[in-house]
Amino acid sequence: MIDLLITYDVSTETSAGRKRLRRVAKVCVAHGQRVQNSVFEVSVTDVQLLALRDRLLQEMDPTEDSIRIYRLRQPREKFVEAFGRDQYRDLSAPLIL
Amino acid sequence: MIDLLITYDVSTETSAGRKRLRRVAKVCVAHGQRVQNSVFEVSVTDVQLLALRDRLLQEMDPTEDSIRIYRLRQPREKFVEAFGRDQYRDLSAPLIL
Repeated sequence: MIDLLITYDVSTETSAGRKRLRRVAKVCVAHGQRVQNSVFEVSVTDVQLLALRDRLLQEMDPTEDSIRIYRLRQPREKFVEAFGRDQYRDLSAPLIL
Repeated sequence: MIDLLITYDVSTETSAGRKRLRRVAKVCVAHGQRVQNSVFEVSVTDVQLLALRDRLLQEMDPTEDSIRIYRLRQPREKFVEAFGRDQYRDLSAPLIL
């Protein structure tokens, strides 16, 4: 799997911008999770990456918004530090009920 | 040099939050550039990373804000894709006046 970081810059002062952020978030969390308001960590196969990219490009307004997709170093947890509020949940860890 | 991506989640609905974002931005652009509203790409040495991390922690409010520091794969341009508005400027490219 490829670990990606997707950062999405959109003006959330307009309802159209907030709607686009919601739709981009929906596309991303189907493959991973939101770690900050407009930052997502996803894990995908090569084929899923193609589909994900297409979906993101459909949702964004290229004249207004900015999307950056970074291929992260693996294993991801070795190359990221988080300070303050941390929304990240290790989805591979056993779920204790 | 280490290529880092710094993502900073802060509520910009308060003046205190906007001030913190400005101060974090100032710390980051001393070592690199802002590529999205609260996303920065910086290049630092090991020693500079220690100082950068300390400065960021001083500026943030850990109860309110979130800072994530990712060590990027190198060469960075091979592992990032940008769509829509792209603020990135290749500072190592020759400046043509």
